[in-house]
Amino acid sequence: MRDFKIERPAENLREAIQNKIDNLNKPKGSLGLLEELAMHICLVQQTLQPQLKNPTHLLIGGDHGIEREGVSVTPREVTWQQMINYTLGGGGVNLFCRQHGFKLRIIDAGVDHDLSPFYMEEEQGAGGILNRKIAWGTRDFLYEPAMTETEMEQAIEVGVREVDACIEAGCNILCIGEMGAANTSPSSIWMSLFCGIPLAECVGVGSGLDSEGISRKRKVLEEALGRYRIWHKYDPESTTRVDILTAVRYFGGYEMVAAIGAMLRAAERGILVMIDGFIMTACALACTRLYPDSQSYMIFGHMGDEGGHARMLRFLQAKPLLALGMRLGEGTGALCAYPIIESAVRMMNEMNDFEHARITKYF
Amino acid sequence: MRDFKIERPAENLREAIQNKIDNLNKPKGSLGLLEELAMHICLVQQTLQPQLKNPTHLLIGGDHGIEREGVSVTPREVTWQQMINYTLGGGGVNLFCRQHGFKLRIIDAGVDHDLSPFYMEEEQGAGGILNRKIAWGTRDFLYEPAMTETEMEQAIEVGVREVDACIEAGCNILCIGEMGAANTSPSSIWMSLFCGIPLAECVGVGSGLDSEGISRKRKVLEEALGRYRIWHKYDPESTTRVDILTAVRYFGGYEMVAAIGAMLRAAERGILVMIDGFIMTACALACTRLYPDSQSYMIFGHMGDEGGHARMLRFLQAKPLLALGMRLGEGTGALCAYPIIESAVRMMNEMNDFEHARITKYF
Repeated sequence: MRDFKIERPAENLREAIQNKIDNLNKPKGSLGLLEELAMHICLVQQTLQPQLKNPTHLLIGGDHGIEREGVSVTPREVTWQQMINYTLGGGGVNLFCRQHGFKLRIIDAGVDHDLSPFYMEEEQGAGGILNRKIAWGTRDFLYEPAMTETEMEQAIEVGVREVDACIEAGCNILCIGEMGAANTSPSSIWMSLFCGIPLAECVGVGSGLDSEGISRKRKVLEEALGRYRIWHKYDPESTTRVDILTAVRYFGGYEMVAAIGAMLRAAERGILVMIDGFIMTACALACTRLYPDSQSYMIFGHMGDEGGHARMLRFLQAKPLLALGMRLGEGTGALCAYPIIESAVRMMNEMNDFEHARITKYF
Repeated sequence: MRDFKIERPAENLREAIQNKIDNLNKPKGSLGLLEELAMHICLVQQTLQPQLKNPTHLLIGGDHGIEREGVSVTPREVTWQQMINYTLGGGGVNLFCRQHGFKLRIIDAGVDHDLSPFYMEEEQGAGGILNRKIAWGTRDFLYEPAMTETEMEQAIEVGVREVDACIEAGCNILCIGEMGAANTSPSSIWMSLFCGIPLAECVGVGSGLDSEGISRKRKVLEEALGRYRIWHKYDPESTTRVDILTAVRYFGGYEMVAAIGAMLRAAERGILVMIDGFIMTACALACTRLYPDSQSYMIFGHMGDEGGHARMLRFLQAKPLLALGMRLGEGTGALCAYPIIESAVRMMNEMNDFEHARITKYF
């Protein structure tokens, strides 16, 4: 994989930012998480007057070989059906994008269906699907790696190019979501490998499995992970870059690896990226294992309902903005948190300080 | 006090609403709290196509006699200074109102200052302060009731008239906030009396007391409550309407009693009302003790940082939408939750169902 140059934002403005926050006309600290968020955004943007420009949502779709093992209640065809639904504006992701003024880019990174009637060119702006298809779904990781090294590189580059296109269009805050039937399965395995948590504790209901379904899913994933360990001569103590990347390509979906590429590119280019639920957090986790400083650019939007998400967030020491019990995916949880990010930015730009407001500074 | 006719919304649409929610193109229940919220709103509005119209924020100001006992870090003059600051658009409440499209009504219910240069008439629309002043601050409840029965009636009527004016102007969702130095003190006492929780556990940092300040506040409030018990011949087992109303007028601020009037009138007229932090929740609590069904019209926006707020919410079995650690007051926490309410409404109106989206219904 290409090397990303990712550095933590410089700290030299921290004191000035804190001073500004403390002088706004409110009891010190009384805007809670909004104040922390404002600090975070100001540091990333290296300014005391932060701005959110052309927010853009990447909705990346891909299918998974493992779906054939019956690990998901969502059947494979729902991936392409939903991709088309997004072009018609009727999905969950569409309404939250409309509500919060996000441009939506719908990306086919590896959907197992001919979506060409819905493809559009970059220049056409919006509505259609961007054709970045690497293959018609990944291979079944119960038997073999989900993708080749070349395919992984390609998926990373899909994410990189998307971020570059967004920045080109003036965007400085990105949200990423996914559509891919069965993609909680690879996410659970990544969580287990990257956090060192037993797999059984990383497997949840996905889009709505019953207890029988969960035990089937758990069994399939245990088996896949067992075979992987032999294939890769896996050493649980070793988490080198190679180990991480191998797990990424062995289990990942194209939409997930593209998301990793996008998150890393966003960090490299210094823009904010909003992280959604279980699947996107698993991708963020992969990013932080490869480039710990990439986390400095992430805002965790929502703590979802999928078993294990809370634990992954704790592992990352991340504070999600919302906890609405959502588990739809598509990036919807993170999108719902956007107004809070906006509130933090407005606080920095629109709130009077004590001096201007002529209010007794009482602390 | 006038009698309010408050009834729970009719339940006959419940099944039809649930059917609609379950047929939207998403795994069942996957929009979590948004789905519960959508049900709530649809029931209140008695429709499957809910709408939020002309959202309005009432910012009600009043001063407290108890402030003279040194129970607050915020000095009395901050109440009027902030009231003026709101007219200039520079307060926390202003920016969140702008962000979420709320009309702001700034109401002087009992500020201890001549605000007449900033008064405006109803017809003038926005920007100024509405003169509803009952008195120049309440009396000091360490020694006597904060207000007379007549003043309490007047404060209730301030809230009632505000709600009527809002509804007249086409509003069907209301948010209420307050400004009043020292008003966590009466709130703590109400919490103790209405929830049956020892006072010491109901007293918190307010706008930023240190531990010495907290113990002073606790001592003053214990003393006030002790005297009240003798004065009122208080029976802890008795929570008749008279007991509740007596505690309301003995400890309450004009802004708080006006808020109670507004909450009850909103429930009577069947519109949604968003409840903010510690102080507004104490008012909501008083409402539910007087009219249990009034809670059916309330949406709890934010769980604040003030000690005891979480406990009051648990007592009410309320699920706040946000928990951002805010403790600014003014209604800011609830306002920040508004986009989530909007999301729930959009979900009902804009999301495709499975049939229209031509997606395999997989559960």
